[in-house]
Amino acid sequence: MTATIPSALATAQEFVDPELRKVLSRLDPDTRRVSEYHFGWINADGAPETRSGKALRPALVMLSAQGGGGDYGGALPAAAAVELVHNFSLLHDDLMDGDLSRRHRPTAWTVFGRSAALLAGDALLALSTDMLLEDPSPQAVDAARSLSTAISRLIAGQAADLDFEQRMDVTLDECRTMVAGKTGALLGCSASIGALFVGAPRQAVEQLDAFGRELGMAFQLVDDLLGLWGDPDVTGKPVLSDLRSRKKSFPVVHAMTSGTAAGFRLRELYAQPDPLDEGQLGEAAELVDKAGSREWTQNECERRLTSARRHLELADCGTATEGLTELADYILRRQR
Amino acid sequence: MTATIPSALATAQEFVDPELRKVLSRLDPDTRRVSEYHFGWINADGAPETRSGKALRPALVMLSAQGGGGDYGGALPAAAAVELVHNFSLLHDDLMDGDLSRRHRPTAWTVFGRSAALLAGDALLALSTDMLLEDPSPQAVDAARSLSTAISRLIAGQAADLDFEQRMDVTLDECRTMVAGKTGALLGCSASIGALFVGAPRQAVEQLDAFGRELGMAFQLVDDLLGLWGDPDVTGKPVLSDLRSRKKSFPVVHAMTSGTAAGFRLRELYAQPDPLDEGQLGEAAELVDKAGSREWTQNECERRLTSARRHLELADCGTATEGLTELADYILRRQR
Repeated sequence: MTATIPSALATAQEFVDPELRKVLSRLDPDTRRVSEYHFGWINADGAPETRSGKALRPALVMLSAQGGGGDYGGALPAAAAVELVHNFSLLHDDLMDGDLSRRHRPTAWTVFGRSAALLAGDALLALSTDMLLEDPSPQAVDAARSLSTAISRLIAGQAADLDFEQRMDVTLDECRTMVAGKTGALLGCSASIGALFVGAPRQAVEQLDAFGRELGMAFQLVDDLLGLWGDPDVTGKPVLSDLRSRKKSFPVVHAMTSGTAAGFRLRELYAQPDPLDEGQLGEAAELVDKAGSREWTQNECERRLTSARRHLELADCGTATEGLTELADYILRRQR
Repeated sequence: MTATIPSALATAQEFVDPELRKVLSRLDPDTRRVSEYHFGWINADGAPETRSGKALRPALVMLSAQGGGGDYGGALPAAAAVELVHNFSLLHDDLMDGDLSRRHRPTAWTVFGRSAALLAGDALLALSTDMLLEDPSPQAVDAARSLSTAISRLIAGQAADLDFEQRMDVTLDECRTMVAGKTGALLGCSASIGALFVGAPRQAVEQLDAFGRELGMAFQLVDDLLGLWGDPDVTGKPVLSDLRSRKKSFPVVHAMTSGTAAGFRLRELYAQPDPLDEGQLGEAAELVDKAGSREWTQNECERRLTSARRHLELADCGTATEGLTELADYILRRQR
């Protein structure tokens, strides 16, 4: 089932896209082309396309601004900056993982080459800081600080993820720390930077940050389920792609550390030097299920969302609460 | 001939290295290891080594602080931040160029893999902003702005450099613009951010920026000469490496656009699809010389240094002038 897309995502996109297009126009022509392709605004030949990404993080930023007592559009530079950072990380991730497709399109590095994609990522990262430091709003520097911290955590998470590839002894706790960096840091920042930008009280900013971080955990847990059992037509990724690349995702690590026979066999499959064939991939997915790890992941996801909702209540966001709740629900129900 | 290394470089290194080591200790263990290897502090196995890089940019920052009326160590976080950005760009450059050695050692990506080196670069870039935004000094945010602008220009310069690889019609003006970004922006920032950090008048900061940018041009012109005629034992790069990779360096572009027979033949060599053999590489170097482009590059370098010295005088840096002049001279006289 595909969940109804919350209107907040479309609205955020309408607000943030012109801002992003404006800031991307400052890039040199080559880097701009790679970035605009990556954002889904143009195809490989430069002809206009309909944007393919979802503006989840900008939507969080803008609802956060509203929830923090400001205007919905009151933290637009922060919304754009967060989206730039997100796309920096996607560009570099696709390079590192050697992924061939994203959002149902060939990844930027496969179209423009590794170097151009690497540089485009660098450029988006640099632009995100530029934007906030140039903004005259009194809280723009605080927002830049918050984003900068999130970026460092995000990179540390990516480094841990990379490290996991070489290791067979990853624990669930390490997995949590990695995801808190790789996914949680930027979602925490997205959910709080809007409120920060419009001058909300510190207490609200902190609760929104916690809300976003828990949401990030839930988001990753769903992603991990989709990476095993998602419909390729919907996810845009090949079937069982996470097992193919032997990713140490939550369900996999849970299964491997479950002490079950299924977990033990999964370890054996992950440890073999040759690529897994289609039969072994299917077996690996079944083993995760047998170890109880599919169910554990679903439950963990619900727990994280419950915790996220509690933080959201404490943030006291007034009318923005409904939109933020809707986004949280959407993240869980994307596909199952 | 190898020029005497100015004492300012050793002094700057003594100041900035502890600061860099401190800030690098915040990285996750894997990224830290790659970064410390890249800085030359440890070997591939993690054992301590003597640092191999020269602290040129930190020396500029610290003399700039002194010249701007502050203490020599008054802009230490800016000195470290600039050095982080420089090393971010080296890590990513080595990846993009596929360079196997730097500073007489295997490049980080050849030791730790492409993904680890890419991430280490990302991490150093993020840290540089973190450092300045966390600093309580009143001018730290202005310094962060200055650095952020320089980073974006640096990346645009790298993108132009990459673009040049695909093109045979690069002009000298395009070459100047590229180098102004790739080399000039960060050297301009290095020479001015110290003064900015200690609260020097705007006029002094601007003149120092211009001094650093001209120095950057001179630096690149010397580098381009070394890339053709430098001693591999001294440069740490293979002989004629710039011709091997068909780099559109100043002397090469000057020769190609010189309208001479030598320039025309050089174009032919650069346009051929197969790698250049040793004989062709030697011929290409001779053609650059014959076209008068070696001499032009030497003269252009002197012109840039004269301009740099003029800006330095106008910056009115008192006792720091001598140290800055010494650095500028050193850059020109490294090896010829």
